[in-house]
Amino acid sequence: MNQRVLIKYLKIDENNVISGFVDAIRDKKNICFIVVRDISGKLQLTIDKTKNTSLNEILSKITNESVIKATGKIIKSNFVKLNNQEMIVDNIEILSIAKPSPIIAPKGSETNIDLRLDYRWLDLRSEKNTLIFKVQTELQKSFRNYLLNNNFIEIHTPKIINTESESGAGVFELNYFGKKAYLAQSPQFYKQMAMAAGFERIFETGPVFRAEKSNSKKHTTEFSGFDIEMSYIDSFYDIMNLEEDLIINALKNVKEKYEEEIRSLYDTQVVIPQKPFPVISLTELYDELEKRYNYKANDYEKGDLTTAGEKLCENLAKDKYNSEFLFVIGYSAENRAFYHMRDKNGTPCGYDLIWKGIEITTGAQREHRYKILAKQAEEKNLKEDVKDYIKFFEYGCPPHGGFGLGIDRLIMVLLNLGIKESMFIFRGPDRLTP
Amino acid sequence: MNQRVLIKYLKIDENNVISGFVDAIRDKKNICFIVVRDISGKLQLTIDKTKNTSLNEILSKITNESVIKATGKIIKSNFVKLNNQEMIVDNIEILSIAKPSPIIAPKGSETNIDLRLDYRWLDLRSEKNTLIFKVQTELQKSFRNYLLNNNFIEIHTPKIINTESESGAGVFELNYFGKKAYLAQSPQFYKQMAMAAGFERIFETGPVFRAEKSNSKKHTTEFSGFDIEMSYIDSFYDIMNLEEDLIINALKNVKEKYEEEIRSLYDTQVVIPQKPFPVISLTELYDELEKRYNYKANDYEKGDLTTAGEKLCENLAKDKYNSEFLFVIGYSAENRAFYHMRDKNGTPCGYDLIWKGIEITTGAQREHRYKILAKQAEEKNLKEDVKDYIKFFEYGCPPHGGFGLGIDRLIMVLLNLGIKESMFIFRGPDRLTP
Repeated sequence: MNQRVLIKYLKIDENNVISGFVDAIRDKKNICFIVVRDISGKLQLTIDKTKNTSLNEILSKITNESVIKATGKIIKSNFVKLNNQEMIVDNIEILSIAKPSPIIAPKGSETNIDLRLDYRWLDLRSEKNTLIFKVQTELQKSFRNYLLNNNFIEIHTPKIINTESESGAGVFELNYFGKKAYLAQSPQFYKQMAMAAGFERIFETGPVFRAEKSNSKKHTTEFSGFDIEMSYIDSFYDIMNLEEDLIINALKNVKEKYEEEIRSLYDTQVVIPQKPFPVISLTELYDELEKRYNYKANDYEKGDLTTAGEKLCENLAKDKYNSEFLFVIGYSAENRAFYHMRDKNGTPCGYDLIWKGIEITTGAQREHRYKILAKQAEEKNLKEDVKDYIKFFEYGCPPHGGFGLGIDRLIMVLLNLGIKESMFIFRGPDRLTP
Repeated sequence: MNQRVLIKYLKIDENNVISGFVDAIRDKKNICFIVVRDISGKLQLTIDKTKNTSLNEILSKITNESVIKATGKIIKSNFVKLNNQEMIVDNIEILSIAKPSPIIAPKGSETNIDLRLDYRWLDLRSEKNTLIFKVQTELQKSFRNYLLNNNFIEIHTPKIINTESESGAGVFELNYFGKKAYLAQSPQFYKQMAMAAGFERIFETGPVFRAEKSNSKKHTTEFSGFDIEMSYIDSFYDIMNLEEDLIINALKNVKEKYEEEIRSLYDTQVVIPQKPFPVISLTELYDELEKRYNYKANDYEKGDLTTAGEKLCENLAKDKYNSEFLFVIGYSAENRAFYHMRDKNGTPCGYDLIWKGIEITTGAQREHRYKILAKQAEEKNLKEDVKDYIKFFEYGCPPHGGFGLGIDRLIMVLLNLGIKESMFIFRGPDRLTP
């Protein structure tokens, strides 16, 4: 029988078995205090060295960050700052001895992020960093539950593919039994294939690979995508509507569960957005940015959102709509993928969603009509690469649309982090370890 | 407003809007019957051609597998075999025209699996194939809910890695900005890293890559893994216990939701196993196989489960224990990974789980003690490749263990399929499309 109890669930005035990492040791002549940390919290252990002499040898071996198991009675005590409770230890066992941590910075300084990433498993031990993954877990759980309650099917699409899935820029090449293969830059083609298969509504969580030599605060060569596709929509507004519901529901759950910890560890608020999120066209957006913030984009840039424009969306959303979120529509066809459906004026039927000045989604209705799709591909000079994909639409396919969210990027924006800190393991052009 | 209703939720004696694929057409002089199929079921549309003449042009264009939208009143009728109901159509709209399907076999024959895979999106349209992914969705949902209710954290580990993660056999090589990189053969090292990071309990769903040139009914070069790792276990029996609970819970949910459909479409029963699953040591297993089925393995093979032995586990589990499942323990150290903990006799503290004669899991307690782990790696001549991994255990790490399940393989065993049919998209040495 495994009798270990999480520190959060200790029973007062009873004997408990706990285990965790040694957070701190204060070893005095007659008494030794050890703070132990598990996934749920911290606890002070108190050992009376005069009484419990058999433990002295073990105590002399324990180092910071070692893993120990302790047994003893939990008592309430107003002298103990940590939750006003302590364990009066009967027994201690060392489960794993730790060498001194190489990533502890001298007082007053901060450990360099690259050294922290070299020892990511030590870096992740802080409450602050562990919280990232508790929040991420809650976000994904909320997304999935919402979708599962709405008849979505979960699929897994292949990551090894025979053609360069999107633009051709930034794809990793692979040796596949002597043939060339590539790592999927997105599950786009396959989630649309599921629509042609009649699955109607699907989602997928999976890795997305981008061979981009960018060292920005937002980019990584591998991240976790959350992708959705949905049939029988009337327009891309149905997709935006679904995305609003998903985000509101997820943020509500995160707030309910982690509001306090996010506030105290990240000094930030979880704001639940109102529905509908504000929507603005690119044309109107650039007008507003000029009027309000004196930002002028060049005319040739105005079919897309510039980097500076994207950033200013944070101010605009707040100043004009009192919102953290902003849907931007009306991109030009040159700046969107060939598979986006276009309206009568040739404008792509899609959007980007900007959260606190950072793009978190591209969504769109897709072109499901074979002939039009083939023509749009041809206009972008896409032939061999999309040949198999276009076949999906020759044998009947419902109208459909969807979007993708980067899970790591969501966390990054929610907690105001850089991408390197938001990921369990970051991958960049110069970072392939651990 | 999107007013479409799923066929399962039609309202009788009311006007409904439905859409789906054309499953069949019977076009007579004065009347036309169309069976429409959506994700939830099928419906007969009835069009009185003498009354509704404006639809005649549209009707003449509709082909099998085209996608249509129809509006009309749903009425009960004892003359209609299909659920005793039909739609008296007011209006029909064609959403997408289908060319004739290339994968329909002549009567009395079956379409070759390779042709079916070439047009996988058409192959997936059958109720039978769609059910695979509904069941898979339910399995994963059940796994995750169970784990989330037990304080597990969801992580995403990198799939691009700098060393060959397991044995070195069968790994895909990648060009990573001019450096060599590899596709992860399992998340093993990273889920253990999460234990060294103090996450205590984690799970991950993600792709697993194996560059094996095997064309067996069970193998694929890319599949979806469901991986679990858990700290502060007393022994690998804690892991087996968790796996039992997970499987029982998931199969219960699948049975509750899809028992009828699985029986009628796959002619098979969902059997809920009893806890504990039977456990047998390899030594005892080979004795039994010889005694009962006259199967003799060579002595040098007896540290591992032979292919024929694995298959015979189906009979043994049934005959001896009246079970579909069988835990096999007592593998030899040569046949297990270096990171498996070993007992006093040098026997690895781990197991395989066999379901209906097919291995679905390898699980184990891991060696978390740095020095012993380093020694076990050295004995297997692993140096550079595991150097970074072994570092995880130098700075304190709780005792832990875990296992991995192949999601596609689970479905394969549950529904008695081959692996090619169990996957959304199959990947093999000769199959990289679609």
